[in-house]
Amino acid sequence: MMERNLSVVLARRPVGEPREDDFRFVEGEVPEPREGEVLLRTRWLSLDPYMRGRMSAARSYAPPLEIGEVIVGATVSEVVRSRNDAFPEGTLVLANAGWQRYAISDGRDLRALDPTLGPPTYALGILGMPGQTAYCALFDIGRPRPGETVVVSAATGAVGSVAGQLAKIAGCRVVGVAGGPEKCRYAVDELGYDACIDRRAEDLDAALARHCPDGIDVYFDNTAGAILEAVLRRLNVGARMLLVGLIEHYNATEPPKGPYLGPLLVARARIEGFLVRDHLAHTPAFLRHVGGLVKAGRLRYREHVVDGLENAPRAFIGLLRGENFGKVLVRV
Amino acid sequence: MMERNLSVVLARRPVGEPREDDFRFVEGEVPEPREGEVLLRTRWLSLDPYMRGRMSAARSYAPPLEIGEVIVGATVSEVVRSRNDAFPEGTLVLANAGWQRYAISDGRDLRALDPTLGPPTYALGILGMPGQTAYCALFDIGRPRPGETVVVSAATGAVGSVAGQLAKIAGCRVVGVAGGPEKCRYAVDELGYDACIDRRAEDLDAALARHCPDGIDVYFDNTAGAILEAVLRRLNVGARMLLVGLIEHYNATEPPKGPYLGPLLVARARIEGFLVRDHLAHTPAFLRHVGGLVKAGRLRYREHVVDGLENAPRAFIGLLRGENFGKVLVRV
Repeated sequence: MMERNLSVVLARRPVGEPREDDFRFVEGEVPEPREGEVLLRTRWLSLDPYMRGRMSAARSYAPPLEIGEVIVGATVSEVVRSRNDAFPEGTLVLANAGWQRYAISDGRDLRALDPTLGPPTYALGILGMPGQTAYCALFDIGRPRPGETVVVSAATGAVGSVAGQLAKIAGCRVVGVAGGPEKCRYAVDELGYDACIDRRAEDLDAALARHCPDGIDVYFDNTAGAILEAVLRRLNVGARMLLVGLIEHYNATEPPKGPYLGPLLVARARIEGFLVRDHLAHTPAFLRHVGGLVKAGRLRYREHVVDGLENAPRAFIGLLRGENFGKVLVRV
Repeated sequence: MMERNLSVVLARRPVGEPREDDFRFVEGEVPEPREGEVLLRTRWLSLDPYMRGRMSAARSYAPPLEIGEVIVGATVSEVVRSRNDAFPEGTLVLANAGWQRYAISDGRDLRALDPTLGPPTYALGILGMPGQTAYCALFDIGRPRPGETVVVSAATGAVGSVAGQLAKIAGCRVVGVAGGPEKCRYAVDELGYDACIDRRAEDLDAALARHCPDGIDVYFDNTAGAILEAVLRRLNVGARMLLVGLIEHYNATEPPKGPYLGPLLVARARIEGFLVRDHLAHTPAFLRHVGGLVKAGRLRYREHVVDGLENAPRAFIGLLRGENFGKVLVRV
C-alpha cells in the first residue's frame, strides 16, 4: 500500500525572519496521473534563498505564492507511475515538484538526469541552477581577466563556492567573504581562495585593503548590505559588480537606508559610472551630430552669464545650489 | 599699459557648502611667455560642479587642488602674446587657464576654436565637455531604443538639457526632473521634454508613476540621492542607469546612508543585476565546462543534507541565517 502525500504550504506571509508556524503541513491522497502525465515521488528537494522572496506579497521577477499554496522548489524526483512514454517508471528527473512528497507533471518541466554527469543531487547544485548562476554571472557579466582580483560574498555557499573556484581556475586572485572561521578555513584550504574574510569577526574595510592590495575588479555579490558597501570603496577603474543575491535583505521588514539596489536584480538592470575622458575617441562623431543639430536650430541652449572673475566664487556656490539656469559662464 | 593678473586660489578646503572666504583673490604681474609659449587672456571661464570635488582632499579621478593653488577650469582664451607659431596673436582657443585673467601655455592643451561651429562660448558647453558628456553617456552607456522612456535629472542643466533633447530626437519618451516651476516649464516648452517633475514640489514616486506609465528604461543621473532612489523603484527589465554627476553629494560632510555609489563614477564601474533565466542559452557550455571540471575532480562541492520533509521549514530558516555549510538539500 502506498504512503499518503505530504505537502508544506504557506500558512501566512513571514514578517522578517520566517518562523516555523509560517508553514503548515498538509496530508492528502497521492494524486493519480491522467493520460500524458506522470506521478513523481520527490527524492531530493533543493532549498534556496530566492524562496524567501516568493513568500512575500511584493511582486518580483515571479508572482508571489498564495496563502495555502505549496512552497515552490526544484526537486530530483522519481517517476513512480507513468502515462507518458517519454518518462518511463523508474526514471530520475529534475522537476519542480515543490515542498511535497508526490506531484503530478505533464512532462514539460522535466529533464531526465544524465547519470554520467555525477550523483543525482548535483543537478540541484553544482550542475544545476546554482552552478549555472555562478558560471553565467561570472563570465557573462563579470568577465574576469586573468590577473584581476575577484571578491565573492557568501563564499562557501552553493553559488559562491562555484563562482570562487571558477574565478581561480580562470587565473584570478580570489578573495571570499564568509561567516565564521570554519567556513573561512574551508574556503582557503579546500576551495582554493587566496584569502577569506570572516564577516563576523573582521573589519571589512581593513580586511579588503589587506587582501586586495591591487583593488577589486569583479565583485560577485550574493548578499548586498555591508559587504557591498565596503567593496564599493575599493573598486578599480572599470570594475564590474554583479548583483546575484540579496541575502542580507531577504528578511528585512523595511527598505534599507539609501539607494536600495534590489530592483537592479529583479530588472537585470545596471548602474554604470561615466567619465567623458574615456570617450574622447568619439569627439568627431559628437561634433558632427550635436554640431549639426545646433546649426540646424534643433537644439535649445541657454547660458547663465556672470560678469567679472571677482563674482566667480559666488556663482560657483549658486551652481551647487541649483540657482543657475543653464550653463554657467564667467565673462572675464 | 597692461592690466595686472588676477587669480582665484583655494584659501582653505570647504566644509559642506563652499563659502566665499574659502576662496582668495591674488593680484600679480602678468607672466611673460618663453620660447614656444603663449600668453592667454581669459575671455570666458566655465564653472562646473566637478570643481567641488577638486577642492576636497579626497583623491578622486584627479588629484585634489592644493591650498593656495589657482582653481582649475576650462576657458575660452585669446592669445595676446605668442612665441608659438601654431597659435598666432588674436587666436581664440579652448584652454585650461583656470580661474584667472592671464595664463601661460606651451600650446599642448590648447585647441583653436572653429568659428563655423557657433559662438565661442559653445566650446565650453553644448559643443564642449558638457555636451560631449551628454552625447557619449547617453549613446555609449544608455543606448536608448526609440520608444523607450528616458529620465534625466538636473534636466535643464548644461549636461541634462543636451541629454534630454538628444534622447527626444532619438525617438524616446523623455521625462525630466528639475528644481522649480520655471525650469520645469522651460524643459517642456523649450527643450521638448514630454514632462518635467518639480523635485521641490512633487512626490517623486507618484510623479514618476504618472509620467512613466511604461516604466523607465534609461536614467541619466546628474544628481544621485532621492531621485536615483525613486527611479530604482520603477526600472524596466534591462534598464540602464548612468551615473554622470552626484550634485546631491558634492557638499556632503559625511557619506550617505546605505551603499554610496560615488565610487562607481570615479571608477567608471558598474553594478548589474543578474537572473540565470536570461542565460539558459549557455547551458551546454556550462555543462561542458563545469561538468568537465567536476569529473576531473578539480571542483570541490559540499552538500548540507537534512532528512525528512518535516524538517524543511527549519532548514530554510537556517539557510537564511547562514547556518548551513554548503548546498542545502532535503532528502524526502
